[in-house]
Amino acid sequence: MASRRRRLQTLFDIISIGYELLDGRVLNTNARWLAEQISGLGGRVCRIVAVGDDVDEISSVIRDSLRRGIDWIITSGGLGPTYDDVTLQGVAKAVKRKLVQNRRAVEMLRERYRVLAEEGVVESPELTPHRLKMAMLPRGAKPLENEVGAAPGVLLRAGRSRIVCLPGVPSELENIFLKQVKPILEKSIRKIAVADRWIYVRGVPESTLAPRIEEVRERVPGVYVKSHPEKREGESFIRLYLKAIAKRKEDCEKLLDRAEELIVKAVEELGGRIAEEGEAR
Amino acid sequence: MASRRRRLQTLFDIISIGYELLDGRVLNTNARWLAEQISGLGGRVCRIVAVGDDVDEISSVIRDSLRRGIDWIITSGGLGPTYDDVTLQGVAKAVKRKLVQNRRAVEMLRERYRVLAEEGVVESPELTPHRLKMAMLPRGAKPLENEVGAAPGVLLRAGRSRIVCLPGVPSELENIFLKQVKPILEKSIRKIAVADRWIYVRGVPESTLAPRIEEVRERVPGVYVKSHPEKREGESFIRLYLKAIAKRKEDCEKLLDRAEELIVKAVEELGGRIAEEGEAR
Repeated sequence: MASRRRRLQTLFDIISIGYELLDGRVLNTNARWLAEQISGLGGRVCRIVAVGDDVDEISSVIRDSLRRGIDWIITSGGLGPTYDDVTLQGVAKAVKRKLVQNRRAVEMLRERYRVLAEEGVVESPELTPHRLKMAMLPRGAKPLENEVGAAPGVLLRAGRSRIVCLPGVPSELENIFLKQVKPILEKSIRKIAVADRWIYVRGVPESTLAPRIEEVRERVPGVYVKSHPEKREGESFIRLYLKAIAKRKEDCEKLLDRAEELIVKAVEELGGRIAEEGEAR
Repeated sequence: MASRRRRLQTLFDIISIGYELLDGRVLNTNARWLAEQISGLGGRVCRIVAVGDDVDEISSVIRDSLRRGIDWIITSGGLGPTYDDVTLQGVAKAVKRKLVQNRRAVEMLRERYRVLAEEGVVESPELTPHRLKMAMLPRGAKPLENEVGAAPGVLLRAGRSRIVCLPGVPSELENIFLKQVKPILEKSIRKIAVADRWIYVRGVPESTLAPRIEEVRERVPGVYVKSHPEKREGESFIRLYLKAIAKRKEDCEKLLDRAEELIVKAVEELGGRIAEEGEAR
């Protein structure tokens, strides 16, 4: 199932950066929010990894995602102006590129601090070196406008993968994702079809059916089967949930037909029968 | 810093297993709870990884932790009786051991289902094959009693590392951790000392001080320096937070003294001065 899904769906890893996630100070709500967004778009999140603000750790985790052929690597956190905001150093190291001052990012920061100074949030709009640090992007990267805070998001290609870096402040992360990243994903995520079906089985214990279900899963890759056993009037009753993922809806239905056929055959051979949902409730 | 901390502190990875974490259905509160517990005991969580209910994925992530020399690998989720509870298969694959029926785990399940049947929660106390599946542990593993639900936790050694598997239901995870795992950790986590200190710097811009702080961090490993810049009456004011981790308190203080000495010297060379916290607020 995994391997088939992998080929069909666009694959994502979410990498959350910050020591505050590792000592339990902060609950990783950003990762959940991103996972929800990505799933909603039809993408598949393979792993969510939290690591500390450490260049080697960040680089190691990103290299691991690249090695596994992940299509989109989304990081959150570590884009600010302080010493321990080292996400872009970690990314640069992972993709073996230099950090260079990005002209467009400098413009974004200039405009941003002009507004922040006007609003009295900061004292001066001056682009100090530590503010300019936020415009040091891996060579070839594109800054993504941040309408809420200062640090721009970052988008870069690395071979066939793309890396997106978002700030850790939830409102900034959400702003950049929704305005700058989601439109790109909507165009590039592979479209997939999904179909599902329930089958109800009476008179076969789950443990007896289990190896036959395993067989079905092996013989019809692309179909996911989850069994929910119950006891109804002392007899075994199993609700089987089947789900298929394929390029087109028709292919999903064909996969489900094939899986159902094998399951019905197995149930009959085991002396059970296919039931109706409402039976003997 | 990272490398020094690594040698001093007992290292943990938390591996959370379940597709529901990857599509945003469930927020990973178990990982945060575990991270908080582990930090409270003086351990250091290096990574938190969420993966799906997939034997190869689980095995791959665990092997990665073992390869990185992590002392304790704590997994959550995937210990139940259904097809897609495959955590122990993943662990067994990672450590190249067979799953075998564990006698002590069978006893635990027998007692558990006896009580559950008495309470009317389940119809029969019979240890069906799918209930017995929860007693199939990697060879050499020790079951950890679950006072709340059915699936026992699991503890096993793998070289110099230890792997602990906990159920995904929070009340069960917390019960097994607090009653069975925490007492072992309290004895085995390396004791460390921590000390911290603030230094206030006036008249040096943060961007000018930054490279000198980097130097200090390199010359005094074991000291973590975080700077919090402010503007006070138009002049630069930096609050520097220093934290040292070492075996003994005295060693921490020595490290902090050494770091402070270097910082004072740098500040003076740069034409600034050491200030009092309350100055020019």
